[in-house]
Formats: sequence, structure tokens, C-alpha cells
Amino acid sequence: MSDRLILTLAILGGTGKEGQGLAYRWAKAGYHVVIGSRTPPKAEGVAQDLNERLGSEMVAGTGNEEAAAVCDIAVLTVPYKAHEATLKGVKDQLAGKILVDVTVPIDPSSPTVLAQPEAGSAAQQAKALLGAEVQVAAAFQNVSHIHLRKDGPVPCDVLVCADSDDAREQVLQLVEAAGLVGWDAGPLENAVVVEGLTSVLLGINQRHQMKHAGIRITGEQRGDAPGSG
Amino acid sequence: MSDRLILTLAILGGTGKEGQGLAYRWAKAGYHVVIGSRTPPKAEGVAQDLNERLGSEMVAGTGNEEAAAVCDIAVLTVPYKAHEATLKGVKDQLAGKILVDVTVPIDPSSPTVLAQPEAGSAAQQAKALLGAEVQVAAAFQNVSHIHLRKDGPVPCDVLVCADSDDAREQVLQLVEAAGLVGWDAGPLENAVVVEGLTSVLLGINQRHQMKHAGIRITGEQRGDAPGSG
Repeated sequence: MSDRLILTLAILGGTGKEGQGLAYRWAKAGYHVVIGSRTPPKAEGVAQDLNERLGSEMVAGTGNEEAAAVCDIAVLTVPYKAHEATLKGVKDQLAGKILVDVTVPIDPSSPTVLAQPEAGSAAQQAKALLGAEVQVAAAFQNVSHIHLRKDGPVPCDVLVCADSDDAREQVLQLVEAAGLVGWDAGPLENAVVVEGLTSVLLGINQRHQMKHAGIRITGEQRGDAPGSG
Repeated sequence: MSDRLILTLAILGGTGKEGQGLAYRWAKAGYHVVIGSRTPPKAEGVAQDLNERLGSEMVAGTGNEEAAAVCDIAVLTVPYKAHEATLKGVKDQLAGKILVDVTVPIDPSSPTVLAQPEAGSAAQQAKALLGAEVQVAAAFQNVSHIHLRKDGPVPCDVLVCADSDDAREQVLQLVEAAGLVGWDAGPLENAVVVEGLTSVLLGINQRHQMKHAGIRITGEQRGDAPGSG
């Protein structure tokens, strides 16, 4: 982690449901959270609501650029159609930092079918756009905001892909701080699996009459189960 | 399902561990299973071993072409490097049938990183090769043979992609017959998610000191949990 005691997290496009859910959980865990929006007053309103719910002043709201400028780690929770423009607007502010891309490259007209970008995934697209100075991770795409905005354990694990060990490690700590179980899902080349799993889960909701379908990783700890395999 | 009482399943390249595990479970469930191999005597030997274990005569062994010719549904469990050649050899025999592709397009030198074929996935590659007369599904890539070859429940669900509702339905029945939990993972365009998940799970085994990492689908049945969001 960073040398600083309390990290500041920016949630870009954080006025949406997923962003609010993550902001709630991280503020509750003691992080400074700055919600960014194209419409700063909207971000301020969301921050105020969250502070009231939490009984603290851990959340602030501002524009996306300002949020990116003051943060240690930025989390991107925008609809895919706003992905490129939002990243271009904060590229300079993110230099030397980590971006956690939560974006799912979904075609809203058929969300249950994978819509893979040419770069391979939204996260790889972000990396191409932001360049070598920004570490990029992909995470949280599969977790329903319904779970994040409630208290208590979340019945969906988080797969974390990243382009550096440092980014992966820091994001896995953020997953844990949010009260979720995180797994190292490898390099950014694997991000299409994690992003695409959202389409698979949305389809399972539809076709199996479910809601908030998610995943858990199963398996045995090595050494703990001798003779079992 | 078919009108026939007992379906015949071919397991092409079925002398490997994954193929043997699936053959064991389906023969136990009452299916006729024909193990196919480039080396027929090897398939015959595996069939004999399985019959001895099962105390029945449900399993036969022969060449891949013969197995494909006599089956109702074929299951392909070959290493990726043998994928194209095996399919070309059985194309005519599979006309009018269903192929279940279990292949993971992995580069053996870095199995924890997605190696995506140009077609999008091995299953889509199979479809392109086999043409409109063969229905193609993708399934079982994430289940460790260790679990399949044992009796009892398997701690890994099966995601099923297919290019037709009929194929998806029949493969979901095969999943259930093998004693596993299956989920409709949508069209073949989603197969990269299911195939690539294998790389993610192999990486989790490595990096989290696990063995046989798998997935479970979580969620709530709609209607069963009113008020939960």
C-alpha cells in the first residue's frame, strides 16, 4: 500500500448505482472517497447523501478531472459509451496512479451477448489510451450494486486483472476493504473473461429466473487437504 | 431429447483424463459411451477399464471417426493443438448431430494467460469448420478431471454456450446426468468467457495456493425472495 495512512479514492462517473455502492463501502472502511461526475452538483448531492447515511464526512463530490487530480487510486464506473471520453479527460491527472476499470463493454440492445472491443477488453482499451504512466486493473464488473449498497457479506467474488503486480495487490486490498472476496485473475489480457462474465450472468438472470447472479470461486487450499487429489 | 431411450455419446480424444472422467459419469448415468481415439487400441483399453470399474458394458472404444459415426452427440476433449485436425476428420460423420467442444485454446507455455483464437473461441472455430449442419456447444472446460473421475457432487458448475436452443437444452441435460449443475451461458459468442475462465482458474491455483479451483453461480431465485432488492 501507499505510505500515506488514508488513501483517497476517486470514483469517476461515481453518481451511478455501482459507483455509489463502491463509494459507500470504501468510505465505511475509512477511505477518503471523492465522487467524480461530468455534473459536479450531482456528485456533491450523492456525496452528501452518503455522508448522512454514514454519519461522517468521508465522501466529497466534484468534477471527474478534479477527482482524478486529488486521488491516489481512481475507479471508473461509467457506461461503456462514456468510457473513452471520460478517460481522455483525466489522462494527465492519472499519471503515476492506478486506474481500476469497472466498465463492461456491453451493447445495451443485447446485454447478454459479449461485445468485445478491438483491444480485447475495455480495460485493455483504457491501458492503450492512458499509456505506460498509468497502471490499469479490471475488477468489480460482476457485482450487483444491490449488494454493494447494502451492508453485510456479498455473495459474489471479485476477479482482479492488472498490468502490474503492484496494481493487482492494491486492488485486492480494496476488494477486501469493501468486504468482498478477491482473486488474482492474472494479467490484463484476461480481462475479457471478467468483463464478459457480466453478459453471461445477466443471461443467467434472464434464462434461469434469477436475480443478482454472481460467482464464487471454489477449490481446495493446497496442503490443507492432503490425499484429496 | 431424442426419441431414442438411450443416447450414444462419443467422446472424441476420450482417452485423456477429462474424457475418461466424463465417460465414467455418463456411463454410470446409463448412456452408451463410445470413446474415440487416434489409436483405437488405447480407446479399447480405457473402455475396458471403465467397464470393469462400473461393472457394466456401457463403454466401448474405437477410432474417432467410427465413434463420431455411431453417436447421437459427440464431445470433443483433445488438446488444442489437435482441435482442427480432429474436427476435420469427423466433419462428415457429425452432420445432423451436436458437438460439445470442451477444448481450451491454451498455450501450454503460459496456460494462465488467455490465448484467444481469431474466431473468438475454440468453439466458434469448431462451428466455422463444421458448418451449418452441426450444432455446436461449449461446456465442461472449467471442471477438473479429478472431480469427474470420483463419485459424488462436483464443486464446480458448468457454463453452457451453444449456437441453438436445442443443443443448449440437450447439453444441459448431459450436465445434469453427469451429476453437475449447469447454467445457460448464452450463444457461442460468449464461449471465450467460458474457455478463458480456465486460464483464470489455473492462475488462481498458482497464485492462491489452491488446487482444482472452479466456480459456483450464486444468486437468488426470482419470486422466492420478495423484498430482497
